[in-house]
Amino acid sequence: MDFSLSPKLVDLQQRTRAFIAEQVIPLENDARQGAHGPAEELRDELVARARRAGLLTPHASPELGGMGLSHVEKAIVFEEAGYSPLGPVALNIHAPDEGNIHLMEAVATEAQKARWLQPLVAGHTRSCFAMTEPAPGAGADPAMLQTMAVKDGDDYLISGTKWFITGAEGARFAIIMAKMEDGSATMFLADMDQPGIRLERLMDSLDACFTGGHGVLHFDRLRVPANDVLGEIGKGFRYAQVRLAPARLTHCMRWLGQARRANDVALAYVRRRQAFGKPLGEHEGVGFMLADNELDLHTSRLSIWHTAWALDQGSRGNFESSVSKVFVSEAVWRVVDRCVQMLGGQGVTSETVVMRIFRDMRAFRIYDGPSEVHRWSIARKILSEKH
Amino acid sequence: MDFSLSPKLVDLQQRTRAFIAEQVIPLENDARQGAHGPAEELRDELVARARRAGLLTPHASPELGGMGLSHVEKAIVFEEAGYSPLGPVALNIHAPDEGNIHLMEAVATEAQKARWLQPLVAGHTRSCFAMTEPAPGAGADPAMLQTMAVKDGDDYLISGTKWFITGAEGARFAIIMAKMEDGSATMFLADMDQPGIRLERLMDSLDACFTGGHGVLHFDRLRVPANDVLGEIGKGFRYAQVRLAPARLTHCMRWLGQARRANDVALAYVRRRQAFGKPLGEHEGVGFMLADNELDLHTSRLSIWHTAWALDQGSRGNFESSVSKVFVSEAVWRVVDRCVQMLGGQGVTSETVVMRIFRDMRAFRIYDGPSEVHRWSIARKILSEKH
Amino acid sequence: MDFSLSPKLVDLQQRTRAFIAEQVIPLENDARQGAHGPAEELRDELVARARRAGLLTPHASPELGGMGLSHVEKAIVFEEAGYSPLGPVALNIHAPDEGNIHLMEAVATEAQKARWLQPLVAGHTRSCFAMTEPAPGAGADPAMLQTMAVKDGDDYLISGTKWFITGAEGARFAIIMAKMEDGSATMFLADMDQPGIRLERLMDSLDACFTGGHGVLHFDRLRVPANDVLGEIGKGFRYAQVRLAPARLTHCMRWLGQARRANDVALAYVRRRQAFGKPLGEHEGVGFMLADNELDLHTSRLSIWHTAWALDQGSRGNFESSVSKVFVSEAVWRVVDRCVQMLGGQGVTSETVVMRIFRDMRAFRIYDGPSEVHRWSIARKILSEKH
Amino acid sequence: MDFSLSPKLVDLQQRTRAFIAEQVIPLENDARQGAHGPAEELRDELVARARRAGLLTPHASPELGGMGLSHVEKAIVFEEAGYSPLGPVALNIHAPDEGNIHLMEAVATEAQKARWLQPLVAGHTRSCFAMTEPAPGAGADPAMLQTMAVKDGDDYLISGTKWFITGAEGARFAIIMAKMEDGSATMFLADMDQPGIRLERLMDSLDACFTGGHGVLHFDRLRVPANDVLGEIGKGFRYAQVRLAPARLTHCMRWLGQARRANDVALAYVRRRQAFGKPLGEHEGVGFMLADNELDLHTSRLSIWHTAWALDQGSRGNFESSVSKVFVSEAVWRVVDRCVQMLGGQGVTSETVVMRIFRDMRAFRIYDGPSEVHRWSIARKILSEKH
Repeated sequence: MDFSLSPKLVDLQQRTRAFIAEQVIPLENDARQGAHGPAEELRDELVARARRAGLLTPHASPELGGMGLSHVEKAIVFEEAGYSPLGPVALNIHAPDEGNIHLMEAVATEAQKARWLQPLVAGHTRSCFAMTEPAPGAGADPAMLQTMAVKDGDDYLISGTKWFITGAEGARFAIIMAKMEDGSATMFLADMDQPGIRLERLMDSLDACFTGGHGVLHFDRLRVPANDVLGEIGKGFRYAQVRLAPARLTHCMRWLGQARRANDVALAYVRRRQAFGKPLGEHEGVGFMLADNELDLHTSRLSIWHTAWALDQGSRGNFESSVSKVFVSEAVWRVVDRCVQMLGGQGVTSETVVMRIFRDMRAFRIYDGPSEVHRWSIARKILSEKH
Repeated sequence: MDFSLSPKLVDLQQRTRAFIAEQVIPLENDARQGAHGPAEELRDELVARARRAGLLTPHASPELGGMGLSHVEKAIVFEEAGYSPLGPVALNIHAPDEGNIHLMEAVATEAQKARWLQPLVAGHTRSCFAMTEPAPGAGADPAMLQTMAVKDGDDYLISGTKWFITGAEGARFAIIMAKMEDGSATMFLADMDQPGIRLERLMDSLDACFTGGHGVLHFDRLRVPANDVLGEIGKGFRYAQVRLAPARLTHCMRWLGQARRANDVALAYVRRRQAFGKPLGEHEGVGFMLADNELDLHTSRLSIWHTAWALDQGSRGNFESSVSKVFVSEAVWRVVDRCVQMLGGQGVTSETVVMRIFRDMRAFRIYDGPSEVHRWSIARKILSEKH
Repeated sequence: MDFSLSPKLVDLQQRTRAFIAEQVIPLENDARQGAHGPAEELRDELVARARRAGLLTPHASPELGGMGLSHVEKAIVFEEAGYSPLGPVALNIHAPDEGNIHLMEAVATEAQKARWLQPLVAGHTRSCFAMTEPAPGAGADPAMLQTMAVKDGDDYLISGTKWFITGAEGARFAIIMAKMEDGSATMFLADMDQPGIRLERLMDSLDACFTGGHGVLHFDRLRVPANDVLGEIGKGFRYAQVRLAPARLTHCMRWLGQARRANDVALAYVRRRQAFGKPLGEHEGVGFMLADNELDLHTSRLSIWHTAWALDQGSRGNFESSVSKVFVSEAVWRVVDRCVQMLGGQGVTSETVVMRIFRDMRAFRIYDGPSEVHRWSIARKILSEKH
Repeated sequence: MDFSLSPKLVDLQQRTRAFIAEQVIPLENDARQGAHGPAEELRDELVARARRAGLLTPHASPELGGMGLSHVEKAIVFEEAGYSPLGPVALNIHAPDEGNIHLMEAVATEAQKARWLQPLVAGHTRSCFAMTEPAPGAGADPAMLQTMAVKDGDDYLISGTKWFITGAEGARFAIIMAKMEDGSATMFLADMDQPGIRLERLMDSLDACFTGGHGVLHFDRLRVPANDVLGEIGKGFRYAQVRLAPARLTHCMRWLGQARRANDVALAYVRRRQAFGKPLGEHEGVGFMLADNELDLHTSRLSIWHTAWALDQGSRGNFESSVSKVFVSEAVWRVVDRCVQMLGGQGVTSETVVMRIFRDMRAFRIYDGPSEVHRWSIARKILSEKH
C-alpha cells in the first residue's frame, strides 16, 4: 500500500497547479462568458494557453498528442485543473469531450480517429454526446431510448429528439445513441452541420460552465453511412458503460478541485472576517464546518484515487465508480453548501467564485446517473455479490 | 387547542389561492424579469391586480388601507402568496417593504406615516432597509456597525457604506441604521433621491425575486433633519429586533409557499414520468423523498403557526421566531433540493419553476441571521432560561 | 387557531408533573428492575401510587373508571408521564395495555369488558397483544400472518408462533391475531393460563422498560370459544389499524417525555461541567446541540398535538399518525443521541437516566411500523391523493 | 500510489480471518460473559487460542514476541480481529493494553519492560490506563487534571480519583497520569495490588466488550518509586499524545471490523426475509441502506489506511488520526444503526450479534476525544495551517 505520488506526477501536479493559478484564474472574470458558458473565443484562448504550457488533452494517448495519463494520474491532474471553473475547458478535459475521447480511442476506426478524434484531441473542435431524451424517452433509464436508426441501403436514417445535450451548439460532431429495429442500441458519428440535425434551442440551466451550454436536438431522417457507425452495431449500451464508468470518475476529479477552491475561498474569509469579537473561523460553529469540509474533501479524494487505481488494474470499475460517484457528488456538494454558508451574504453573490461553483455543481448529483440510480445499482450488486 | 381556521380566514385563504393561480402564475414567464428581479413595470401590473382583487398589503392596518391581519392570519395568506415567486410582489408583502411597514406602523410619527408609509402601503412606492455593511462593518453581528450619524445643528450627517440593500434601486426611501457618537444606534428615514446617497452598483446574486435587486449604497454626509429620525434616538438595535422577529417569520411563511409549489411540481412529474418500468414516484427511493417533503412541509407549517400565535398573544417572540427561522429555512431547503433531485435534469433548468425557487431560496439560511447565529442565540437563551 | 391549554388541562398537566417528580422518579433506581423490565411488585407499587393520586388509566372512559381523556389531553398527560421511564407503568398507560384498552373499549362485548377490560383498567392485571411472528410470518408486513384459527364446532383452534410479545410474561390475557381459512384475520381473547399457550422464553432486548419483557409464545390448538372473538370475524386487519393509529401516537407522546427528560439532564450537566476554560454549554458545538434538541422537541410536540387534534375531530388519522410516528421517532432519537454525546462518558453509563432512555428508545423507530414502512405508506397516499 | 496488499499481508489477513471464524466466533455465546465484559477465564481461553494460532499480540515488536506490525499491517489484521467482539480480546490487541504496549515500547526502561511489558505482551497479564477523572477533573480536556503526584524523598505520593478506567478490575498494573507541583503532568507505573489503590466500584456501562469493565479508582498517597516513572518527569501530556494518535486509529480498525460484521449479518437477513411480496433487500428503501453502508465502510477503510500509511512514513499523525477518528466513529455508527433498522425487531434483541455491537460501539464517538473536540482540533489546525 502506498499513497505517495511519483516525482514525475508531483511535477505534473505542480505544473498544472501553477498553470491554473497564473494562466486560468486571471481569466475567470473575463467578459466572454454568459448564461450558456464560456464563449468559443474564450475557450480558444484558454486552450491555446494550455497548449503552450504543454498541458492540453493530457488524457489522450501519446500517439494522438496527449500524455496517455493513467486513471490515477488523471485523478491528480484533473483535480488541479478543476480548481478553476475554466480549468477543464483550458485543458480540454471537460465533459463531454473528455469521455468522447476516451470512448473513441477504444472503439473508433482509424479513419474515424483521423477525421474526428484527432482535431478534438488537438483542441480545434468540440463534440457532443446525444443520448438523453425528453419523456417518454431515455433519461435515468437508458433502456427507454426512443430515437430510432432505420437501415436504408448501406446507410442508417436516424430520427428522434434529444435534450440536455451538453456542448451541442458549436460542436463539430455528435455521438448519437439510437435504437435499432431489434431493440438493441448503436452509436453513430455525425457532423453537426448536416441537414438532418436541428438545434431547436439552448436550455436555461443552473450551471454555466460548459461551452455550448445544453441544447435540444432534433434528428429528422439524418443519414449516416455504415462507415460512421462507432464500434459495432448493437453495442450501444455496452459502450455507454465503457464511456460512463471512467467519465463519472473524471467528473468526481474535476468537482473535487472546485470544492477545494470553494473551501480555500471560504477559509480565507473566515480567517479574516470578524464577528462577535473574533474571527468567524474561531467560532466553533464555523470551525466545525471547516472540519467537516476537510473530512469530505479527504474521503472524496481517497475514494477517487482508489477507483482510479482499480481502473488502472484492469477492473471495469462499474461498482467502484458508482460508489465514488454517489459519495463524491454528495460530499463535494456539502462542502460547497457549507462554503456558501460561511461566506454569508457574499456566498450568494458573485463577490466570490463560490456562488458560481454552487450553481455549476448541483447538477452533478443528477447527471451520469442520479444518486438514487447508483444507490440502487450498488445495492443490487451487493445483493447478488456480483461485484 | 385548535388547529382549525375560521371560516373568514378560510375564505381569505381560498381567495388568495385563486388569485395566485389565476392572476399571478400566468405572469411567471413574463419577459419583464431579469437578473435583478421583476422590473418595476411588471411589479406595477402585479400590484394593480392585487389591488383589484382586494388583496393588496393585507398586513397593514385598516386605517392605512390594509386588512390588519394578525400574525396567524398572515401565516395563512402569506403562504398562499408565496406559492408563486411573484405572489409576494403582487400582494406588496415582500421583504423589505413588509417589515418596514410593520416597523413604521409601530414607531413612525403621523407625519412620517403620511409622507412615507401611506404611499408604501398603497403600493405606489417601495422602500429599502439599510443595515448590512461590508467588512469590517455590521453583518451577522449588528454591533459592528460602522456607518456614523453625527449631530450637526438640528440635523444629522450620515456617512458610511451599506451593501446587500434589497430593493435599493428604485426605492423611494430608505430606513438607515447608523451609529451615534455614544455607541448606540439610531434609525433614520431618508428619500433615496438625495445628493448624499449614491447607489454604487447592483450585486449579482443567486436570487432574482426582489424588484430592485440588492444594491451597494454610499452615504456621504447625508443630511437628515431631526424630524426624520424613526422612533427615538439610540433605540436602533431595539427597533431592529422589533422589526426582525416578525420579519423572519413572514419570510418563513412565504418560503413555505414556495416549497409547497416546488413539491407540487415535482409530485406531478414523478406521478407521470416512467423509469425502470413504473412511474418514478412508485420507486421507494423517490417515494421516500415525497414522504420527507411532507414531513418537512408539515412541521414547518406547524412551527410557523405556533410562533405566529405566540406573537398574537403578545409575546416578543424572539426565541420562537429564532426557532422557526432555523427550522423552516433548513426544512424548506431540504424540500426544494429534493424536488430538484426528483425532477432530474429538468430540476436544474428553467423547464420548471423549481430551479428559480432553488436559486431564490438559498439565501434564506443566511439573511435575517444565519442558522449559526440563531442556533447560538437559542442556546444562550436555553442556558440562561430567559425564554 | 389556538395553542393554549384549558385551565383544567393545565391543572392535570401540573398534577401529573408533580406526581412524576415526587412519586415516581424517586423509585427509578429501585432494585426491583431487571433485564426484562420493572418487576410486578414494583409495578404494583407504582400503580398504587397513581391510584392514590387519582391519575390511574386516565385514557379509559369514565364508565370504566378512567378520565376519558381526549387525544389532545392524552398528548399533555402522557408526555408528562413519560418524563420518567417508570411513569407510563405507574399511570397504566404503557404499551401494550394502553392500546388494548383503547381497542377493547371500541369493539369488545359487555361481557368481555367485564371479564377482561375492567380489571385491566383498574390496574389489577396486564395484557399482551400477540400479532408479530418470526419469519416467514407477520412482521412489518401484517399480511404474512401464519398463525391459523380453525373452526372446531362452536370454537376456534389456534396454532402458531408469536414473538416480540411485549408483556407476555405475567399478562392475564392476550389479544391474538390469527388467520382464518378464507385468508382474512380475526382477533381472539384468551387467558394466558390455558394449556394451549406456552411461553417459550423471554427475549434479551435492548430495552427494559416493559414489565414482562418481550416473550416468544407458542399456540398449540388453543381452544377459543366463539364468545371470545374480539369484535367481528374477519376484521382483524381493520381492528389492527383502529388500534395502531392512536397507539402509535401515544408512543410518540411518551417518548417525547423521555426525550425532554434526557435533555434536561444533559442541560444541567453542560451548564455545570467545565472544559477548556468555560462550561461545556458555552462551547458553540455543545450549544448547537442544545438548540437542535429544542427544535426537535418543539416540532415533535407540535406534530403530536396536531395529529391528536385531528383524531379528536373524527379523522381516522392514519396518514397523520404515520407522519407523526416517523417524524417523532426519528427526532426524539436524535435528541437522546445528542444528550448521550453531551454527557460524554457518563452518557454511556448508568450514572444518569439517559443511557436507559437511549436503550429503551431505539426500538421505537422499528415497532408499530418501521420508518421505512411508514414513509412508503405516506408516499403511496400522497401519490394517490387519498389522504 | 498502490492500494494492493503484499502477499505476506494477504496471507496474514486470511489467517486472521480464518482464526476469527473458526476459533473465536463459536465462543461468542459462551456463558462466561457478563455486564462487565468477558470473564478472565474466557479471556484466557481466547488468548490461548490466539497463541496457538501464532496471532497473539501481533503489534508488539519481535523482540518482545510480537510480529512488529506496521500501522498499515495493523489496519488489515485489526479489522479482521474486530469482526468478532471477542477477536481483539483473543489477539491481545484491545484497549487499553494495545495502546499501553505501544507507549511502553517507546518510552519504558528495560527494567520496566521486563517487569511489566513482557508479561503483558505474552498475554499473561492485563493493564489499565488511569487518566480520566470525575468533575472537576480531566475529561475531554486533559489540562484539568486533578490527581496530584507529590515528591516525597526519592518517591512520589499520588492522590486522586479516576473513573472510566477500562480493565481496572483484574489489571496487573496501571499507567497513572498525575499532575506535578509545577503544573506539568507525569506518567507513573504501579502494580494494582498496592494499599494506596482502591477499586471503588465498576460502572454500569452500555458496552460490555472489555474484560474488567470500567472502574472507579481511588489513589490515596500511593507511593511510587522514582524508578517507576514512565519516561521523563513532566512529559505526561506529550506521551498521552504519543499513545493516543495511534490508539485512536486502532480503535477505528477494530470498529470497522465490527461494522462489517453487523453489515454481513443484516445483508444475510434482508436477502432472506420476505415482506410485501419480495425479499427485504429488494425494496429500494432497504437497498439504499445497503448502499450507504458500503459507502461508509469503504471510505472508513480508506481513511484508516491513509492515516496508517502516514504514521508509517513517520508523521506524528495527530491531524490525520483526528480526521480518521471523527469520520470513522461516525460512519461505522451509521452503519450499525442501519443494520439494527434492517433487522427490525431482531436488531434490538440478542437474536443476532448486532445489538451487542450497537451497544459496544456508541462510546466510540466519545472516548479518545469526542467528535466535538476532534472537530475543533482539526479546525484550529486548518486555521493555523500547522498540519
